[in-house]
Amino acid sequence: MLALRVNKKSLSVRDIAKPDNAEEALVRVLVSGICNTDLEIARGYAGFNGTIGHEFVGVVEKTGERVVGEINAGCGKCELCRDGDSRHCATRTVLGIVDRDGAHAEFLQLPAVNLIRVPDSLPDEHAAFTEPLAAACGILERVPVTPDDRVAVIGDGKLGLLCGQVINLSGATTLMIGKHDTKLRIAARRGIETSTPKEAAKRTRQYDVVVEASGSASGFKLALDLVRPQGKLVLKSTFHGTTEINAARVVVDEISIVGSRCGRFAPALDLLKRNAIDVDSLISEEYPLAKGVHAMKRARTKGVLKVLLRP
Amino acid sequence: MLALRVNKKSLSVRDIAKPDNAEEALVRVLVSGICNTDLEIARGYAGFNGTIGHEFVGVVEKTGERVVGEINAGCGKCELCRDGDSRHCATRTVLGIVDRDGAHAEFLQLPAVNLIRVPDSLPDEHAAFTEPLAAACGILERVPVTPDDRVAVIGDGKLGLLCGQVINLSGATTLMIGKHDTKLRIAARRGIETSTPKEAAKRTRQYDVVVEASGSASGFKLALDLVRPQGKLVLKSTFHGTTEINAARVVVDEISIVGSRCGRFAPALDLLKRNAIDVDSLISEEYPLAKGVHAMKRARTKGVLKVLLRP
Repeated sequence: MLALRVNKKSLSVRDIAKPDNAEEALVRVLVSGICNTDLEIARGYAGFNGTIGHEFVGVVEKTGERVVGEINAGCGKCELCRDGDSRHCATRTVLGIVDRDGAHAEFLQLPAVNLIRVPDSLPDEHAAFTEPLAAACGILERVPVTPDDRVAVIGDGKLGLLCGQVINLSGATTLMIGKHDTKLRIAARRGIETSTPKEAAKRTRQYDVVVEASGSASGFKLALDLVRPQGKLVLKSTFHGTTEINAARVVVDEISIVGSRCGRFAPALDLLKRNAIDVDSLISEEYPLAKGVHAMKRARTKGVLKVLLRP
Repeated sequence: MLALRVNKKSLSVRDIAKPDNAEEALVRVLVSGICNTDLEIARGYAGFNGTIGHEFVGVVEKTGERVVGEINAGCGKCELCRDGDSRHCATRTVLGIVDRDGAHAEFLQLPAVNLIRVPDSLPDEHAAFTEPLAAACGILERVPVTPDDRVAVIGDGKLGLLCGQVINLSGATTLMIGKHDTKLRIAARRGIETSTPKEAAKRTRQYDVVVEASGSASGFKLALDLVRPQGKLVLKSTFHGTTEINAARVVVDEISIVGSRCGRFAPALDLLKRNAIDVDSLISEEYPLAKGVHAMKRARTKGVLKVLLRP
């Protein structure tokens, strides 16, 4: 079968053997989505070699059910797994990220328990957003947001635009901060206030919650400027390497910096089913899996949002 | 009156006018304590010039009452002050730290509302610990700790030793990490497990809460190593400048970094009254205020814990 593989920072579509672990479900991929993490992995982040990709919708070969899948597969034995949180199991594998071949392929495997049925009404292209939308919803698992809150979201990339929409649905007064007019317009169409980083920088110490989804050092610095004393800064983007932090600001103003990675799939599927999130506007391009290397190049191009692959 | 002053990073005891703001209480200082923040300020932190010092016990001139005092004086008008949190008022002054002469002096002034009566049974030398002990108790305002928790405290300085004792009283399994045998022994006498940083480094990802009270970059790095996924790292020490942070660890393991500065005085006074905290062992030396410059030098010396001043 075809698969988009990374090997020592080199990217290629290769013909490899179909996975055959009898203990896991075999899923025929219908559509997969390219995430910024894929781009980071292709640059060497996390030291992963193998098939990349972790956003997908597919069909279980055995049952014909259309499913999406929780990407973390825990050991099933440790305290965290027994408590139902395999997302943080120390020896977990992660689809297309840690020790497990991923979704940019004709087939993938996951434990059956990781799979969730997709409502029939949901198009494949929308269902493929379940994982990143769950990650955006995951913010609310980590930091409760109420209609009384003022929330700023930094970064108008595909993850930022999902975060901004989710936060806005919570009823909080939401500001999307980004550098790209066309991307900010997607948020504006949902009634979300938008701003450039330069304009936003005037609003120091005004936000109860700031979500950093730009993955840049300048975004992190702006986030720390915008958050109010005792406010919360949600770190949503994994970035490679270290960044500088003004520890005195964090201590003196008693700020919380809250890391957020994955989220539960059920709330995300529910939002997609209700058409509450504009994902259509986030889809920039679609390619056959065979053109995966080109698709990755496109996903890296300025102005391009989600790129989908179809095996 | 005599006062220990900082002027452009230069330290001296000078004879200055007694404060005479009729709108505030005048307090005759009995004992003041030198805090690491004083040492930082003398090095230029926070750009403060004036009388330093913010840990004290004194007598209100007008009433004769023995008091300690909340060091933040808010504007009284902003939303935060109206909600009772002058600690974060944007235009607050802070005793000996921000725009307000401090406690290493014969007299100081604070708004009457900031003063809290000290129980008669409490010796001056113990009451002088109210402010730093309140700061240690402040951890529990920011991060609830239960007997089920494993908590590591990094830094065996005077603040770290207060934090360790407060955490230990909460019933949590507590580990104090430091480099000085004699200091760690103070914690050990209270039944707290102790460790060197090197030994502790083997316990990666094991602690629900880690308190960083060493104010060093290496302490921060160790703290991030020790905290478990979805655990909390309390940043307790203000340090000058920026430090490096491994953002990927924070995001992937969904760690919270929680800044903590001041705390409420009432719980601290209560602990002191009940003799629940060993502060006697933390007192290294005492000097007359006139020898304030020498006392500051001693407070900076390796192995020396709390240095008290007596006007």
